[in-house]
This record gives sequence, structure tokens and C-alpha cells, in this order.
Amino acid sequence: MMKNEESTQAKLEKIRNRMKEEHIDALLVLSSDFHESEYVGDYFKCREYISGFTGSAGSVAVLQDKAGLWTDGRYFLQAEKELKGSGIVLFKKGEENVPELEAYVAQNLEEYAAVGVDGRMISVDAYRRLCKALEKKKISIRLDCDFVGDIWKDRPEMSCMPAWELNICYAGSPRSEKLSTLREKLAEEGAKCTVISSLDDIAWVLNIRGNDVACTPLVLSYLVVNESNALWFVQEQAISRQLAERLEKDGIFIRDYKKIYSYLQEMEEETVYLDPKRTNMLLYQSAQEKNPSGTRKIVEGRNLTLLAKAVKNPIEIENIKKAHRKDAAACIKFMYWLKTQVQKNTEKNQSKMDAEENGLFVLEGDENSGKERKLLTEITAAEKLEEFRKKQEDYLGPSFHTIVGYAQHGAIVHYSATAKTDLPFQAENLVLIDSGGHYMEGTTDITRTIALGPLTQEQKHAYTLVLKGNINLAAAKFKYGACGASLDCLARKALWQEGLDYNHGTGHGVGYLLSVHEPPNCFRSTISESGEESVKLEPGMVTSNEPGIYIEGKFGIRLENLILCKEIEKNPYGRFLGFETLTLVPFEREAIVVEELEAWERDWLNQYHKEIVAKVGGLLDEKELEWLKEATEAI
Amino acid sequence: MMKNEESTQAKLEKIRNRMKEEHIDALLVLSSDFHESEYVGDYFKCREYISGFTGSAGSVAVLQDKAGLWTDGRYFLQAEKELKGSGIVLFKKGEENVPELEAYVAQNLEEYAAVGVDGRMISVDAYRRLCKALEKKKISIRLDCDFVGDIWKDRPEMSCMPAWELNICYAGSPRSEKLSTLREKLAEEGAKCTVISSLDDIAWVLNIRGNDVACTPLVLSYLVVNESNALWFVQEQAISRQLAERLEKDGIFIRDYKKIYSYLQEMEEETVYLDPKRTNMLLYQSAQEKNPSGTRKIVEGRNLTLLAKAVKNPIEIENIKKAHRKDAAACIKFMYWLKTQVQKNTEKNQSKMDAEENGLFVLEGDENSGKERKLLTEITAAEKLEEFRKKQEDYLGPSFHTIVGYAQHGAIVHYSATAKTDLPFQAENLVLIDSGGHYMEGTTDITRTIALGPLTQEQKHAYTLVLKGNINLAAAKFKYGACGASLDCLARKALWQEGLDYNHGTGHGVGYLLSVHEPPNCFRSTISESGEESVKLEPGMVTSNEPGIYIEGKFGIRLENLILCKEIEKNPYGRFLGFETLTLVPFEREAIVVEELEAWERDWLNQYHKEIVAKVGGLLDEKELEWLKEATEAI
Repeated sequence: MMKNEESTQAKLEKIRNRMKEEHIDALLVLSSDFHESEYVGDYFKCREYISGFTGSAGSVAVLQDKAGLWTDGRYFLQAEKELKGSGIVLFKKGEENVPELEAYVAQNLEEYAAVGVDGRMISVDAYRRLCKALEKKKISIRLDCDFVGDIWKDRPEMSCMPAWELNICYAGSPRSEKLSTLREKLAEEGAKCTVISSLDDIAWVLNIRGNDVACTPLVLSYLVVNESNALWFVQEQAISRQLAERLEKDGIFIRDYKKIYSYLQEMEEETVYLDPKRTNMLLYQSAQEKNPSGTRKIVEGRNLTLLAKAVKNPIEIENIKKAHRKDAAACIKFMYWLKTQVQKNTEKNQSKMDAEENGLFVLEGDENSGKERKLLTEITAAEKLEEFRKKQEDYLGPSFHTIVGYAQHGAIVHYSATAKTDLPFQAENLVLIDSGGHYMEGTTDITRTIALGPLTQEQKHAYTLVLKGNINLAAAKFKYGACGASLDCLARKALWQEGLDYNHGTGHGVGYLLSVHEPPNCFRSTISESGEESVKLEPGMVTSNEPGIYIEGKFGIRLENLILCKEIEKNPYGRFLGFETLTLVPFEREAIVVEELEAWERDWLNQYHKEIVAKVGGLLDEKELEWLKEATEAI
Repeated sequence: MMKNEESTQAKLEKIRNRMKEEHIDALLVLSSDFHESEYVGDYFKCREYISGFTGSAGSVAVLQDKAGLWTDGRYFLQAEKELKGSGIVLFKKGEENVPELEAYVAQNLEEYAAVGVDGRMISVDAYRRLCKALEKKKISIRLDCDFVGDIWKDRPEMSCMPAWELNICYAGSPRSEKLSTLREKLAEEGAKCTVISSLDDIAWVLNIRGNDVACTPLVLSYLVVNESNALWFVQEQAISRQLAERLEKDGIFIRDYKKIYSYLQEMEEETVYLDPKRTNMLLYQSAQEKNPSGTRKIVEGRNLTLLAKAVKNPIEIENIKKAHRKDAAACIKFMYWLKTQVQKNTEKNQSKMDAEENGLFVLEGDENSGKERKLLTEITAAEKLEEFRKKQEDYLGPSFHTIVGYAQHGAIVHYSATAKTDLPFQAENLVLIDSGGHYMEGTTDITRTIALGPLTQEQKHAYTLVLKGNINLAAAKFKYGACGASLDCLARKALWQEGLDYNHGTGHGVGYLLSVHEPPNCFRSTISESGEESVKLEPGMVTSNEPGIYIEGKFGIRLENLILCKEIEKNPYGRFLGFETLTLVPFEREAIVVEELEAWERDWLNQYHKEIVAKVGGLLDEKELEWLKEATEAI
């Protein structure tokens, strides 16, 4: 720990020296890449490098005499731990009396001070919020301040992995079709071209995948689409000649990744469509530069691919269902394996004594072979789960870093076990496992909370409240026009009734072999400035349904399924929609207080469990199937 | 009917001639006054004059060869009836494949056409939507087209009723305090002055009431507040010398109502704060005119009084509770009276025969006096209810036009009985009564649906579904941060489950002796562009809770209470809020299918009914109290 502490402080010192040289009074280091991605390649992890905080979301402000990190409820506990001794103060976003980063910077600087930021790492929207906050004190903003890059000696190279094509049998719609729909929308908006920076939108529209971003099969690039053709600004080494030729046939031409800025300055189009939430400020400035005939006009709005990408096409939907069956098989095999390990540990006399003293062991094979006898921990469990996923056909890799949080670690919402924190399992308490995979047939994301031994009444009651939330959202029937924010309370109601809540959204959209967090669809209880929570739910959208409860220092419970929005009924009162639960993995029967469920909730659960056996049973071996049948017996 | 039809067509003909003279291809006639009010004085009823449609919300577009009216779900049935034979086509807003007014106008005009509108009657927001729609065809907009005013010979005078002061024992906070809070917010926004056009905001901040707007105690005026004083642009005859003097002591000076436009053009302030939703376009243009030192800067946002007005202060809350007790007494007296009339009509032989043939009669006094023997109809019932309200102390008048919809008329959401449509009551079916009053202690709004005879299973089931909605919203407990859109589904869930819905919001904010529809708080299932549905619910807000169901041609049910947002609990998980139901009038016991209610819903209802007896019983006579006790017996 000491080494790390010194290191963060030393880095801050270097940054502050750079700031003095450049007359910058506050430096902002945001967690992004040039594309406003959520997960970023190692090259872009400036905020992690400078602060030591490893979560996916968080912003740092460095002033000469103080520094702060702003992150959201998912990361409060983790950030507290990781920032300890760094001198960086944690600001818990959304908590009472906690100032926003922008307001804090404005408060702590003098009039006419200067703020620095890397203009490629800040979205237009974020830049505008910053301007508004700094305006009154006439504080200026400089966009050329990559000071972390300046001091980061062993900075990793920017990723440049090969791009590859997604076959139409997976994509469901050719890029020519997607591009022509995009051009229609562009015309409706009265713009001549659009610049798309968000990597998943580009991958989706081109039917291309890659591997430049952690856990997400994307290609670092920008796409400019005008009325007749498209320019793909991408690292040329990532593109094979064959791929380039095939793209050219569809009117898509390769350009150098780094030349996007100069291209935007010089291009002929007079009206450009841009998404201020998904375009970095330097791009925006470049597009705004005067072209030969005067100032360019910028039409702003959400990326025109955003909704089309969120509404999965029939072929994608069929594929996604296949992916979920395979993913469920892997998860169920893992659950059976885990339960068996616990049983073996607590049955045999010798193992039982060991387990009581040191925690549970992995006990593979028969009792005498003694082949594997390593500790069963958060990390080894995650590895085992990954092993099961790897055995599934067309599995490409995890869709995010697996979270295995045992006991009190379950209460850290986006906990990530490290060698230092890795807890050995005991034959008690709950383990929360949040994981997901990319398959050629789509992306999965599932959380189950598994009992490793007898549970307390408190744990069972908490589990049941969360389960009620999951079921109530899954079973919702609603009129077309409702958005995620309209339904979120169904998942929270049982918890709210008891004065409990979880400090994260109830659900996020999920891409097709793309980002596991895909806007705009989501379930949230509050509506942000961007208003994306107010996008109407459409049949074909896939969203996660993941209520939870986190009892600090004791345990955490989250139950996550992906749900597909579908039309249920159309009548004179309107179009009524509902959901089909795609995830096919049983809940923990032993953790449910049956009498706390409504009769219809029990029916829903029993029906869901029956479906799992029917759809996934065929992918299991005999013993696993036997276990599954027991685990899904009607309650 | 014939006379009316000819008349609308004749008016349209005159309008079209004016349009030709002025080279205007489409004229828009919006339902507003110069202040973006919902209910407007007779002087402003241009849209009603030109179309014959009497609802509170609706816009007309007149082209040379066609004309259309756009209104929302509350008014579909009413508009259909009122537009019959007028040649004006009804466009049902929000229905599938129905174009918005702006899009329709754009579609139906040629390039470079001209649209006319009265710039005082269109908000900045609405004007911008219009511009956006017309932009592509390069259609121009003229703001000086009060053509309806030009042809309207017997147009009523603009109202100019005396303004009066609201005593601090009612207002709870002096205007000096309200103005200084407003000035603080103004400084935070970096503006030097604000122009407030919305009449309820002005009345609230000045602690002034008047009588210039139908059913709303407001004064036609504008208010300009700068750093040191305030200018009240108002019709001078409306202000007594004493009032003017008292206002001057607080730094508020009277100016001529009509001079607001020239004042804005010439004033010195360089930065002006304006609400684009609540400011008319001509005002905005005037404020935008260059002042001596260059272009004026306009800061846009919601009126700075809006939230402060919505969160009622402790004295207002105490008063509001008093108003609700009085209003409940009037409603209960009326309900007892109505039930007694029905009983008398169906008991006595002679009355029974009469009633079966002609409908029910009003049978006051004892059976032999025969004093009153007029038909019991929608209109006579409304008159009787108003009589009861008038007997309450400090009652000032109805807060909106009472809706009494018997049987199939109940299905017309904002039905307003006329001599032509007035239905006589029978000893059967349901009557929906939506009414409210202004008291010195606040404004009420209540809907009850009352059985006039034995109900069918369909009616009872529908009533129970609506009641469940009302109870589920009223009993909600939720974490601070939720907005009306987050909770709306609680009121609709039971209906949605059966493929039913109501075509209106679940609730609207209610002012304190101000507008009965007061933004921003509300309950709605969809989120509009203005995003006001996403304003967080705050303790002190009063909102209506009014789910309904409308079975066209048969009956309508709506159950409306006002609910006060309150803090329930604060714990490490956050601040949890809930509601207190302010309205104290029993639901219809006979209409409830008891076994369709959850146990807790029954408990809620029984507790509510008990509270009514405890709080209102003392204001009733012996017979009424006896009836109330029966009507509220536990189920």
C-alpha cells in the first residue's frame, strides 16, 4: 500500500509542476477515450494512472493545494479504499451537499483563473456544463492539456487490433441498408453529413467488430457519412486489404485515424449533424471551423444510429436467444460445480476441518485423487466461471470484468477482486457474481447471488425483496409511450417500502456483440439532463433488470436478467408492451421467503424456472440436469 | 346545430379573405392569452370563436382549402361533437399516424409560403418548434396576424377586475421575502432582470389576487424584477391607490399593461432572464432588440418563481388542510342529498313511476310540499353542488368549470354539459363529478364517481381497478429524487394489466388560491420535450391523483384526490418521501369489488374513510353524519 500511496502523490506533484509551467490553475482528468467510451483501452486510462482509482466512471480535478475525485454510488466503497492515503478527496455524486465537479472548481478558483483539460477527452455536453459553471468568474478553459500524457513514461501503446466483418447471419441487416436509413434520417434533419465518434455506433452501422477497447469488440475510429459515401478514419494497420475492398464496394473509404481533425476543418459540407454527448470538444471545434464559404452550421441531436441500433432486428433477436441458452448452460454448470465443491468440503471429515480453518477448497475429481486443492476464492471462482463460458461454441470473451463479491465484498457494487482483496469462500453467507460474455450471437450480462451455506433471516428477507423487484419489472405490462424512468419504480417498490434502496440504475441497454452498456434504453429512477431515460421503450430493445441491496460490511444481493421488450396486445386503448426474460438461470430457492411473495409472483417464478429446464436442460450433463431440476422445483 | 355550422364556416370564409389580402397561406389560432394561460378570459377565446370547440386546450390551423384542430385525449369525444359539420378536421394528438400541427402545416404548404400567427399568443418554445418544422421549406412566419380579432365584431372587452391583496395569514410569506429569494436566484443565473409573464407566478410573488381569468383569481399583468425594484405592468384601473402605495413601499411600481413591449425594447439591463415556455414570442423579440450598448443577452430557464411557488410553505399547508375539510363537507352534503333524492324518487309510488318515465326529480322538503320538482340532470346537480360550496366560509368560487358526466357522458374526459346535451339522471349507472373550489385557504380539485342505482359487474370491476390505482399512488413511499414520471405507473398498473388505460395524465400540481393546474409537479407516463415531468417531487408539493377509465358510450370513472408530498423517513439509504391525501370525501363502497383489493389496499381504504369521519364529521348535520358513517363502514 505504501508504495502506491507515494506513487500517486509523486504523480500529482509532477502534474502540478506542469500546471505551473503552463499557468493552469486546475486540471481535469476525465475517464474517457477520444470517443466518449465507458470502458477504455489501457492507453486512455489517464484518470486511473493519476488517481489509482480503477472504477469505470470517475473524474479527477487537480488544483495546486487540493485534488478531488467524483464518482457515483456504484463505486463509493471501492473509491474510498483505492484513494486512501492518496491525498485525493472523494466526492460522492448525488449525495446531499456534495458539489458537482464543475461547481467545486468554480468555487475554489479565483476570477480569471485557467482550467485545463484534454479536449479529445471531454464531450461537447460536458464542456458546456463546465463553461456554464466557470462563466461567472470569467475562468478560461484550455483544451490542449494532456498533462497526464506528458508525465506518463511507460504509457501503453494505443491499441490497433485487426478489424473483422460480422457476417449477415449475425448482423441481420447489411451495412448498405443501415447506411441508407441513416442517410434518410440525415436528410430529415436537414444536414449534409454526420460525424459519428461513438465506437459501437460505428461498429453497428458498418457490421464490423474489433478488439481495441477492454471487453468490447470495437475498432478505434471515426465515421463521416455524407449523402453519397462514407469515410472511415481508422488506424490503417487494423484493416486488411480484402476488408478495405469490400467496404469500398459499399462506398466506404479508409482514411487515417489521426486526420479526422484536419478533415473536419477542411471539408465542404456546410451542415453537419453531431451528437454533443458523444463527440469530443476538439472534434466539435474542428467541425465548427470556417469552411471556404463561411461558418459551418452544426445540427445537434442524438446519433442517428442510436435508436436503430437499440431496437434489435428479428435475426439479432433469434441469435440473442441462442447466446442466452449457451450462457445459461455455462452459468448453471458453474453453479452446480460451486455447490458441489461446498458440499464436498463440508461432507468429508478432513476437508471439513480444513474448510472450517482456512475456507473452502477446490476439490475436483474423486476424493482420493487430490488433484486440485487450491483455495476457493473470489478470483478462482471467476476463473472457473470463465472456463465454463470458454467451452461454449462461438464464445469470444467476457463482456466486462467479472465481479465476484463474497460476503461483505458483495456490498461493493462494482467490486473487482485483486490479489490483495481476494476473499476465500466459507460455507456460509452469499456470493454475488456479475458476469457476461460476448458470443457471435450476442452479448450477455447476468448477476446471481448464491448461498454458500445456511442463510440468516435478514439475508433471506433481503433476497426476497430484490427478487420481488426483479419479478415486478419483468412482469410489467405497460402502454406504449412509457420510458425506462416510468417503470423503474416497479423494481424498487418493495425495497422503498422498507426504507431501502440501491445506489445504481435498475437497468441499461445491452448491445449485440457490442457494448454491454448501450444507451439509450435504461431503467432509472431519476431523469438526467440528457433526458435519455425518457426515450420510449420499443419492441426489440434489450435492457438489464438488476435490482439489488447492499448491506455495508455484511453482504450484497443483486439479481440481474436481460429482458426483451415485446408487444403483448393492441386494442382500442392502445399498444401494450411487456418483456420476455432472456436470461435462463435459476434464482436461489433457499434464499426466498416464500410467504413474502404474492401468489402471482410465485407463479411467475415457477414458470420461469420451468422454462429454464425446458430450454437449457439439453445442454447439461446428467448430474447437472438433476441438480437443476431440484434447484427449480416449484415453490 | 345548423346555425352553428353555418356560422363557423362563415367565419372561416372571412378569415380566408383576410389571409388572401395579407398573403398568408396558413393562419394558426392557438388557445392562449398573452400570458400562456391555460384558462383564458373571454376576450382571448379566439380559437373557440373560430372553431366552435370549447375545450381548454386546442390549436387551429386554417389553410385556404382545409382547416384542422389539434387537441389531446381529454377532449377527443367533445371535439368530435363540437366540430361536426364545421369543415374543421380533428387531429387527435398522440395517436398513431396523426401528424403534429407544425408538421401538417409544413406538409401542406409550398416552399416560400407564409404562415401567420398572433405573436402575443404563441410561446417562444412553440414558435421555435414551428420554425424548425417550416425551416426546410423556407416558409416564413409573420407574428402580427390577429385576423380573428379583425373579424370578431362583438368581441368581449379585456377583463379589468380589481386586484386585491392576499393577507400574510393566508400567503405565509411576505412579498419582500419572495422577491429577495427571486433576486438571489437571478444573480445565480447571472442575469440583471427577469420578465415574468405567467399570471400565477406574478400573483404568487406579489401576494396579489384578482379576477381576470376564468375560474382563476389572477390579474392580467407582466412583472419585471431587477436588482433593486420591480415594475408591474397592469391595467391601472385594476389597482386602487392604497394598493399602489403599499406596493411602492416594497419597491414595486405600477406601469401601463400595454407598455411592456416598448419598455423591454428600451430598458437598460443587458442580461434578461426569460422562460421560453411562459413568455410570448413578441415579448421575447422585444427583449432581444438592441439596447443602446448592443444586443441584449437572454438567459433562458424556467421561471425562477416556479419551484418556490410549487413547494407550499407551512402556513399554506395548514390552510390548505382547512380548505379541504370545508370542501369535503360541501361534497359529502351534496352526496347525501343526491343519494336521498334517488331514494325518494324510487321509494314513493308516484315518484317511482315518474322517475321511470322521465328520469329522477329533485324532491326537496317533505313528500307533500312538492316545492321543488325539477328534473335532476347534469346541470341541476352541478348547481346544487355549487350551492353547498357557497355555504362554506371564505369560499370564492369554482376553480374550474364543474364536470358532471352522467352515464355515457362520463366517458368524455372534460365533458361540459350544455342545455343541449344535459342528461337527466336515472336510478342506474354512474355519474362522474369533477369539481373544485377556491377558498381563502387554498384551491381544491376532486372527482368522485357516484352510483345512482345498482351497478353491473363491469362497472364495479372498472371502479375497483381505478381505485387500486388511486390507492397505490397515494400509498407510495419513494426515495428522494423520483419525479412524477417515475411514479405514474403505480396508478396505471392495475389497468395496464388488463389492457386498459386513460388518455390523460394521472396528476397535476395545484396552486394555492391560484391555478388549479399548476406546473411543474405532475404525474405522467410519458416525458415531454419540456421535461417538466422530470422535476423532482419535493415535500410541500400538492398534486392531484386522478386515475380513470372511460368506456365510450357507456360510462366513465375517475377518482381524484389531492395529495401532499411529505418526508417519511431519513436513513443511511436516503430520504424517503410519501404522500398525505388531502381530499376527505368517501369513495363509493357499493362500487368496490372487495375481493379484488389486496389486504393492505383494504386497510388503506378503511383507514382513509375513518379519517374522513374524524376530520369532517363535525361539519355535518346529524343525518349527513349518519349517512357518512354508513358510507365509510370498514370493508
